[in-house]
Amino acid sequence: MSGSLTIVGLGPGEAHWLTPAAQAALDAASDLVGYGPYLDRIPERAGRTKHGSDNRVEIARAEHALRLAAEGRTVAVVSGGDPGVFAMAAAVFEALEAGDPTWRALTITVEPGITAMLAAAAKAGAPLGGDFCAISLSDNLKPWEVVTMRLEAVLAADFVIALYNPISRARPWQLGAALELAARHRPAATPVIFARAVGRPDENLRVLPLSQAVAAAAFADMATLVMIGASSTRLIARPGQAAIVYTPRSVTKSPCATSQGRI
Amino acid sequence: MSGSLTIVGLGPGEAHWLTPAAQAALDAASDLVGYGPYLDRIPERAGRTKHGSDNRVEIARAEHALRLAAEGRTVAVVSGGDPGVFAMAAAVFEALEAGDPTWRALTITVEPGITAMLAAAAKAGAPLGGDFCAISLSDNLKPWEVVTMRLEAVLAADFVIALYNPISRARPWQLGAALELAARHRPAATPVIFARAVGRPDENLRVLPLSQAVAAAAFADMATLVMIGASSTRLIARPGQAAIVYTPRSVTKSPCATSQGRI
Repeated sequence: MSGSLTIVGLGPGEAHWLTPAAQAALDAASDLVGYGPYLDRIPERAGRTKHGSDNRVEIARAEHALRLAAEGRTVAVVSGGDPGVFAMAAAVFEALEAGDPTWRALTITVEPGITAMLAAAAKAGAPLGGDFCAISLSDNLKPWEVVTMRLEAVLAADFVIALYNPISRARPWQLGAALELAARHRPAATPVIFARAVGRPDENLRVLPLSQAVAAAAFADMATLVMIGASSTRLIARPGQAAIVYTPRSVTKSPCATSQGRI
Repeated sequence: MSGSLTIVGLGPGEAHWLTPAAQAALDAASDLVGYGPYLDRIPERAGRTKHGSDNRVEIARAEHALRLAAEGRTVAVVSGGDPGVFAMAAAVFEALEAGDPTWRALTITVEPGITAMLAAAAKAGAPLGGDFCAISLSDNLKPWEVVTMRLEAVLAADFVIALYNPISRARPWQLGAALELAARHRPAATPVIFARAVGRPDENLRVLPLSQAVAAAAFADMATLVMIGASSTRLIARPGQAAIVYTPRSVTKSPCATSQGRI
């Protein structure tokens, strides 16, 4: 087949985090497929068609992109952040696996991007300086008991935790529940970062102690990345500037004693 | 103070993954500080001084960069991948916290980059499609029992696991031990990715079932990123092309039953 499909990460926010390789993939495309607001970030150009869609139809969007590629088009599926992290790449491969077997002959590539967790961490300092994990709080695609089981595991093992998809109109209480769980494992002073719209003009970064974070959960939205520090994560105060949040690289003692006992 | 310090992520490999914002920080710098091979990737330019150092002196390098900034220089500390992920950002903040209090008045920023895990995932398909974690296997900065405790926790909770710093001359057996531990929790067919020098001309990606990965551990080196799939991670075979490795977004049942029992 002559068509191709590239799943492109735009990074968060404006074009200053778009890699040259991702830019080249967008430039080469005859067809751009993606969620409307991501497509809006890419200039119109003669000979390139935009196919926008709603945010909740990933598989239909992926099948549409694969069909266009099978027709011989040069397709770019655009994704915010990194396409491999809670974004379009896995959806495309789910559609590929279940779909028309001839699609497997297509050339399919993934162009990585800066994912929200890295951008938020950079703005805050270096909160991901030690071992860390990324969890989607959405229970649309997995049972909530899997989310809490995973949270318990990484809280007890003292990972820094990045929470993607923390809250939405249909999922209003999950973030508060996750932070309450964290408060049972980590000190009250543990820094929690609410990073909203990082890299955009309306960027907003708030750092709160865990003891105040539960009450603040209601202010998060779908554009917010929430990060819960490890037991060693701390602040460096600075005169006239925001404090730096960072996690030292060293672990001097076993941090696995918790209210749940040792694991 | 008039000096400034930016900790810049070069991304992995060649310049096609260097963001415009990172490029701008390098262009603005009067002084580049970093590990020699990273500095070698940046062209020489009149009026810009390179300060190379060995790979094992992060704190001395960070202090050197802070002193230069305090003298009024525009300093860029260069880091491979993303500076906040097992790289220079946390080292700079450790040096800042312990060092001359006047350094806290400096303007310090972090420019994110594509970290090795995202580049390796993109080359393989979408192995990070579900919840995942990143662990440094180095026991230079934390006891080995903390590493194994964390591995046990995320293996039992069925995270995809990215292993940074998997092996070195001084740490020859840790990767094999980690993969043996994984083999006690995950099916023998679980895909394990060995991604070496991703984005460089000598890039090499190998995908092996977990049952064969332990024996292959000796072929990894410091430039290798190792990724262990979750129980749902799988391959999509393709005619005449490498199989795609991906983790579906959905979890349909609780994946926490393991040889260790439920956690």
